[in-house]
Amino acid sequence: MSEMPAPARLFLDDLHIGQTFISGTHAIDEAQIKTFAVQFDPQPFHTDTEAAAETFFRGLAASGWHTAAITMRLNVEGGLPFAGGIIGAGGEINWPYPTRVGDILHVENEVVEITPSRSRPDRGIVTVVSRTLNQRADVVQTLKAKLVVLRRPMK
Amino acid sequence: MSEMPAPARLFLDDLHIGQTFISGTHAIDEAQIKTFAVQFDPQPFHTDTEAAAETFFRGLAASGWHTAAITMRLNVEGGLPFAGGIIGAGGEINWPYPTRVGDILHVENEVVEITPSRSRPDRGIVTVVSRTLNQRADVVQTLKAKLVVLRRPMK
Repeated sequence: MSEMPAPARLFLDDLHIGQTFISGTHAIDEAQIKTFAVQFDPQPFHTDTEAAAETFFRGLAASGWHTAAITMRLNVEGGLPFAGGIIGAGGEINWPYPTRVGDILHVENEVVEITPSRSRPDRGIVTVVSRTLNQRADVVQTLKAKLVVLRRPMK
Repeated sequence: MSEMPAPARLFLDDLHIGQTFISGTHAIDEAQIKTFAVQFDPQPFHTDTEAAAETFFRGLAASGWHTAAITMRLNVEGGLPFAGGIIGAGGEINWPYPTRVGDILHVENEVVEITPSRSRPDRGIVTVVSRTLNQRADVVQTLKAKLVVLRRPMK
């Protein structure tokens, strides 16, 4: 994983609809794909290069949950520079293309909804669409997530 | 992760709406939570027990993506015994309660929709709701996923 400097951290009050944030990149290799899959998704198309060729995926593919985990890492590293961190209540996830050996992934984030909490004046819910792309601009994951974001503290 | 014997594998034709499948269990400890988080979700509430006490989570909590990955493992190990494996196109995920140190998780799966493919007679899409529960029956994750499931081959 690439190291990035800590960026400025934004509060809900600093966000607007349509705002975008681009993450750094992560290169995935065969060892990473297999290590993750052996632990969390031990199916031949994720763990065995030869066997994978005969499956639905027609070659080794990363677990979708591995793509999700890398996406999170890229966003925590600066892709989504929110004060208080990235706290997700849930979301909709899709994997249009598989993540393959040698892919270089990055995340393009867009703020699509901002809802200050009525009952909790220190926070709100921000909906962010995170598109994870490879070096060919294939979308390997879309995640529309509802995140808990802090409001700027009163002075 | 607990070892389980390989169960009978089911085709789309063997499924019906309302059918349920229960996985084995997985016990999560502090080391697992921190190891996953350092690699994929390095935020204090997932990596640092002391710092976590002062955060939104009021104590160490597993990354939601870690809960998702454990859920997948439990389903691959027999929670969802589908022929051809578990191949997800996407879904809706929510984390109503955090996963905590010492939690013992299992997954309760229910088939909610079955749609044979019109264009690909060898497969279909099955929608499964996977609820991941801890030992107190708190729901730590719900996942409504669309899975590609093979049809029983013609004789």
